[in-house]
Amino acid sequence: MQRNRQIVVTQLPNGNLTENHFKMQEGDIPGIRPGQVLIRTRLISTDAVNRIWLRPLTYRISVNVGDVMPAMALGEVVETQDDALDVGDLVVAESLWADYAAINVKQAIKIAPSDVASHHLWVYGLAGRTAHQGMLRVGNVQAGETVVVSAAGGSVGLLAGQIAREQGCYVVGIAGGADKCAWVTETLGFDACVDRHDAHFLQALKDACPDGIDMYFDNVGGQVLEDVVRLMNVNGRIVCCGAVSQFDELVEYGPANIPALIIVKRLRMEGFIARDCTAHEIEQAVGDMKQWVGEGKINVIEDIVEGLANAPSALIGLLAGENKGKRMVRVS
Amino acid sequence: MQRNRQIVVTQLPNGNLTENHFKMQEGDIPGIRPGQVLIRTRLISTDAVNRIWLRPLTYRISVNVGDVMPAMALGEVVETQDDALDVGDLVVAESLWADYAAINVKQAIKIAPSDVASHHLWVYGLAGRTAHQGMLRVGNVQAGETVVVSAAGGSVGLLAGQIAREQGCYVVGIAGGADKCAWVTETLGFDACVDRHDAHFLQALKDACPDGIDMYFDNVGGQVLEDVVRLMNVNGRIVCCGAVSQFDELVEYGPANIPALIIVKRLRMEGFIARDCTAHEIEQAVGDMKQWVGEGKINVIEDIVEGLANAPSALIGLLAGENKGKRMVRVS
Repeated sequence: MQRNRQIVVTQLPNGNLTENHFKMQEGDIPGIRPGQVLIRTRLISTDAVNRIWLRPLTYRISVNVGDVMPAMALGEVVETQDDALDVGDLVVAESLWADYAAINVKQAIKIAPSDVASHHLWVYGLAGRTAHQGMLRVGNVQAGETVVVSAAGGSVGLLAGQIAREQGCYVVGIAGGADKCAWVTETLGFDACVDRHDAHFLQALKDACPDGIDMYFDNVGGQVLEDVVRLMNVNGRIVCCGAVSQFDELVEYGPANIPALIIVKRLRMEGFIARDCTAHEIEQAVGDMKQWVGEGKINVIEDIVEGLANAPSALIGLLAGENKGKRMVRVS
Repeated sequence: MQRNRQIVVTQLPNGNLTENHFKMQEGDIPGIRPGQVLIRTRLISTDAVNRIWLRPLTYRISVNVGDVMPAMALGEVVETQDDALDVGDLVVAESLWADYAAINVKQAIKIAPSDVASHHLWVYGLAGRTAHQGMLRVGNVQAGETVVVSAAGGSVGLLAGQIAREQGCYVVGIAGGADKCAWVTETLGFDACVDRHDAHFLQALKDACPDGIDMYFDNVGGQVLEDVVRLMNVNGRIVCCGAVSQFDELVEYGPANIPALIIVKRLRMEGFIARDCTAHEIEQAVGDMKQWVGEGKINVIEDIVEGLANAPSALIGLLAGENKGKRMVRVS
């Protein structure tokens, strides 16, 4: 009988996530019940939010020791107990770091054969909705504004920044390293990109934003957020999307000058989660993204790591910011 | 010739404000130009924001050493060079810690003789507009919500909390000391009040808010803000009105869990300044406040300190939270 490789969580991280927090094991291929399909995993999405699932405080059920690591994935239906999906269909669903997974059909999204399937794992999925909602609904960007996006080379950041460019904004990225910053401006078309490792980061960001900052799409929190707050213009907006700088540790303090500069500059800081989107908002977001990708206005770059066994190192590398573009793990 | 007592700033505070930062001196009664009136000061408003004016970073021109301390005041016109105001009229204006001041008529608000003049220094002035705008426009409180107000016994807090009560909210104050907390519930009608000096403040606040916190009207910042963020409900709002806990010192860190809990709980934190109100918003705020005071729905409590010489100690005490109600200094 064919075996099912799975990567389980062996301990919850207390600090940096390492490969020692996971191990590969083999198990049976799961049986399915009516209303389910069995998928063979094609691509696993790695997302910074995966790290949050390994912490106790979260908006999702936490992962426990011994669990197979959950993740969004693209899979091919190999067995079905539901009329809505046939063998051979491609679906995106919340799945597992495993060769096979049983999926509830109601939680699966079927991909049209004419579409680029991998795009549904991010551009037309949660990453795209996150970028679209954050930039347009929460951030309410207007043409001519200066917009800053951190983790600019990540899946959400690269989409968010390009959406702002499409809206006529002056867009400045923040990313790790000179090489990546050059890639953000040259390949993604941002107007400028500032290296978060720059010893004079605040000054470099100030130089890159001569008119101050009207809107900040924050994926990182921490010191970068603190520095951006100093440069915000009156009536600016800070869209709180992620805090990847703080996922590996419990942080005792938040950014300085909060709430003082929030008051003085009349700032609005607002958190959101794309899972809260209404059906109408999802439709709008996916429609816009398909249009902009089709017109070549948004450059969708994927960073594929080969092999299920490399899922832990792919995620760890993502958290360290080593990826250029949407990082996924190809399983089959 | 009659002399004009004035209190000048002798040094800018670096830490706690003390009486050594001020001195009383005598000067001439100022002359007035066309478009000005001379007022004899009746009441000086003490406001936490006065402390900010003594710091370099502010949304108002800073006060320099040697300047007479500025303040909002109620005065009686004793000399006029403008047809719009007559001798004997009462006006509210940005004025000085002094017996007499020259005021530009365009910046003065004339008080109708039928009104309680002191109310125009706060209830129908900046404090009232701040409470009204913060609670209704920025905070968008809805009947049935749990609303927390810090510095609940101060001029803005006591109005803000009573406005929320009028809107049908469950209102919990935060104030300093058991005696003041009892006064906040008994005299101001808050549903509960938690002592910020309580050794188990977080737990006490949690007990006082069994359904969590939907909206927080923050006048203090710092540790209280950090604790409130932990207890906020999903989709909660934090109205950033003041940060009096941080006025005396430069704070190196902000509240913990920002932005993490902002994201997880989809919170909105928004700063505002009542000086930004439009004419229509001012009219609306003053109209509502007059109606609610007239109907006895808002209890307006004043805490009057006698004598110009006591203005420094009145302000220092206000910053330490010793006042119960709107603190003013009676000059004549």
